[in-house]
Amino acid sequence: MHFLRRPWPKKLPTSISNRQMKTIPVRLPERSYRIIVGHDLVEKLPFFLGRLGRFCRVAVVTERRVARYHLSRLLKGLRQLRLPCHVLYLPAGEAAKEAGTLFRIYEFLAANRMERSDPLVAFGGGTVGDAAGFAASTYLRGIPLIQVGTTLLAQVDSSIGGKTGINLTEGKNLVGAFYQPKLVLSDVSLLRTLPRREQRASLAEVIKYGVIRDRALFEYVEAHLDAVLEGDQKSLETIVFRSARIKAQIVERDERETRGERMILNYGHTFGHAFEAAAHYRFRHGEAVALGMACAARLACGRGIFSVEDERRQNRLLERAGLPVRIKGSAMRSERVLHPMGFDKKKKGGRLRFVLPRAIGRVQVVEDVTEREVKRTLDALGGN
Amino acid sequence: MHFLRRPWPKKLPTSISNRQMKTIPVRLPERSYRIIVGHDLVEKLPFFLGRLGRFCRVAVVTERRVARYHLSRLLKGLRQLRLPCHVLYLPAGEAAKEAGTLFRIYEFLAANRMERSDPLVAFGGGTVGDAAGFAASTYLRGIPLIQVGTTLLAQVDSSIGGKTGINLTEGKNLVGAFYQPKLVLSDVSLLRTLPRREQRASLAEVIKYGVIRDRALFEYVEAHLDAVLEGDQKSLETIVFRSARIKAQIVERDERETRGERMILNYGHTFGHAFEAAAHYRFRHGEAVALGMACAARLACGRGIFSVEDERRQNRLLERAGLPVRIKGSAMRSERVLHPMGFDKKKKGGRLRFVLPRAIGRVQVVEDVTEREVKRTLDALGGN
Repeated sequence: MHFLRRPWPKKLPTSISNRQMKTIPVRLPERSYRIIVGHDLVEKLPFFLGRLGRFCRVAVVTERRVARYHLSRLLKGLRQLRLPCHVLYLPAGEAAKEAGTLFRIYEFLAANRMERSDPLVAFGGGTVGDAAGFAASTYLRGIPLIQVGTTLLAQVDSSIGGKTGINLTEGKNLVGAFYQPKLVLSDVSLLRTLPRREQRASLAEVIKYGVIRDRALFEYVEAHLDAVLEGDQKSLETIVFRSARIKAQIVERDERETRGERMILNYGHTFGHAFEAAAHYRFRHGEAVALGMACAARLACGRGIFSVEDERRQNRLLERAGLPVRIKGSAMRSERVLHPMGFDKKKKGGRLRFVLPRAIGRVQVVEDVTEREVKRTLDALGGN
Repeated sequence: MHFLRRPWPKKLPTSISNRQMKTIPVRLPERSYRIIVGHDLVEKLPFFLGRLGRFCRVAVVTERRVARYHLSRLLKGLRQLRLPCHVLYLPAGEAAKEAGTLFRIYEFLAANRMERSDPLVAFGGGTVGDAAGFAASTYLRGIPLIQVGTTLLAQVDSSIGGKTGINLTEGKNLVGAFYQPKLVLSDVSLLRTLPRREQRASLAEVIKYGVIRDRALFEYVEAHLDAVLEGDQKSLETIVFRSARIKAQIVERDERETRGERMILNYGHTFGHAFEAAAHYRFRHGEAVALGMACAARLACGRGIFSVEDERRQNRLLERAGLPVRIKGSAMRSERVLHPMGFDKKKKGGRLRFVLPRAIGRVQVVEDVTEREVKRTLDALGGN
């Protein structure tokens, strides 16, 4: 049997309408791919897989909560391929990114004899995408990766751009690869079942895109926040599409974070990562980023490069989305936050780089921020 | 202290003569690097590191047996940089490529706060290079990798070409990355302490280069085999230089094994890997490859595309180097060898690809080899 190849289904049984989806091309040397944003697309994955070339089996890596609501839809679609389809469940949350989990993925791929052209579908939130994506990037030195994000955060951020990775006990995302997926499928109908807190946290990244690059997106969120929070499909499609497009454009110009342009995506993150570490990851990532954006805005105001009106406007939108903009609790005391910053991966040759806002829609990377300035910012936001 | 950067030593204390070394450029898009082949070079590593840009610390990953003989020479050189230099010892042999070892490397890098521009020096044989190279490719999504091979096999083969990886219990090299080093330094004076069996096994790969691409190299080995086996530096430099150059040329044209050209490097390996698996890795890799070359030659003769004279000539040279060209022992029975072949990573869509010789210096990739043909070949070489 090993010398036989199953015939590719000649006639794909699914059809798809253009009104259902929008496409964002991501142009990279030898690694171009498309991001598809729309609704009720997950059943139609085979339609897109069919364009990726021949393969003999599919692996799906997912997580139980996601699977309970949506896996049957995905598998119903994949069944049309008439190929073996293997499913692995990862633990929820950061446990998906532990070393042990990574080796469970490898063993799953090996046990099912996945070959170089067989695709792995990462079906879940950011942690599933990061861990399964890293496994795909390294198993047989790389197998095709399909990112189907099931959270707003995955759809607007983590499934795009090719960053994959796992955590060490010494720190988050210390091990990883830049590995571009062959396809990103973002179906906003998957977001219906998302817990409210997670939905809100993800909006921090959307608002971040507005501040760093897209004033119109910022204003759209200001105008449609209630609809978004109520799960309105059209509003969600708009913010996912615009956010994904910004990230794709930045990644196209600086795929491996070598030119500094990709750095602007870290707006709010230098502070944010430090808050996450200081609070032992009790924060949702988006919550820490929101607080980080408030800090960066304050620091920029202190330098006189950002207006207090724009600072208030940013923070007001973050607060309306239910996100924190003030430091609370002793875990967040300045010295606890300053400590992890010193070891943040983002420092280069010992200096800390910060992304600071100039206006809603425009940021700047600065390299000369002092420890004292950071401390003053933390104090101003209540972290003393 | 974390906001300070140590000044790069302005005057490098080492000098180097052109008679000591030859350089092979490896031209790859955005990832070009040099292979330096010579003698008494290891002390002068800082001279070459100085060209790679700034960094603040160096990690050396090595193995005890290698370290006992040569580490002091390497460290003596590195001390001239006046930077912290951290050393990690991996277990000998394939244990270096286990999951647990990989995570020991990651923890070592994290504990010493290695940053994105700090180089990792893989100082050892193929297993050290594979494991440390994979760690370098994935730690912080990639830190600079310097390959200093201490075995003939590493110098002619594994340190060049960017293949890194580790083993799973399900198979060898199932996890890995294509990751180009920033520099390959091959110092033949390191080969003096190599065990005789290892030296001989590595010659299989040198003879392989001769058969697949370089008749002159094949003839050089025929003429200078005794000098090579006695450790003559000049002869070793010649065969390391010519072998490395062939591999570099092939890798330049097919970096990621996508175009099939790199496939010819697998001459002797489809059979060889199966022998290794069937014998539970009691073979040295080079021994299995030698036997695999004998099999491939036999299969090619059976098809009438390779002359019996050339087959004898190849096998005679392998035998003079102390390498096996006949199958011995029940572990090597046909059915045990055929089984792992079916699962060999090299099959594509279920078909087995073989590299077969046409003449000394020329090979061909064929895709239509039948199981029966393979069995007949194994029988002819004594594997029944």
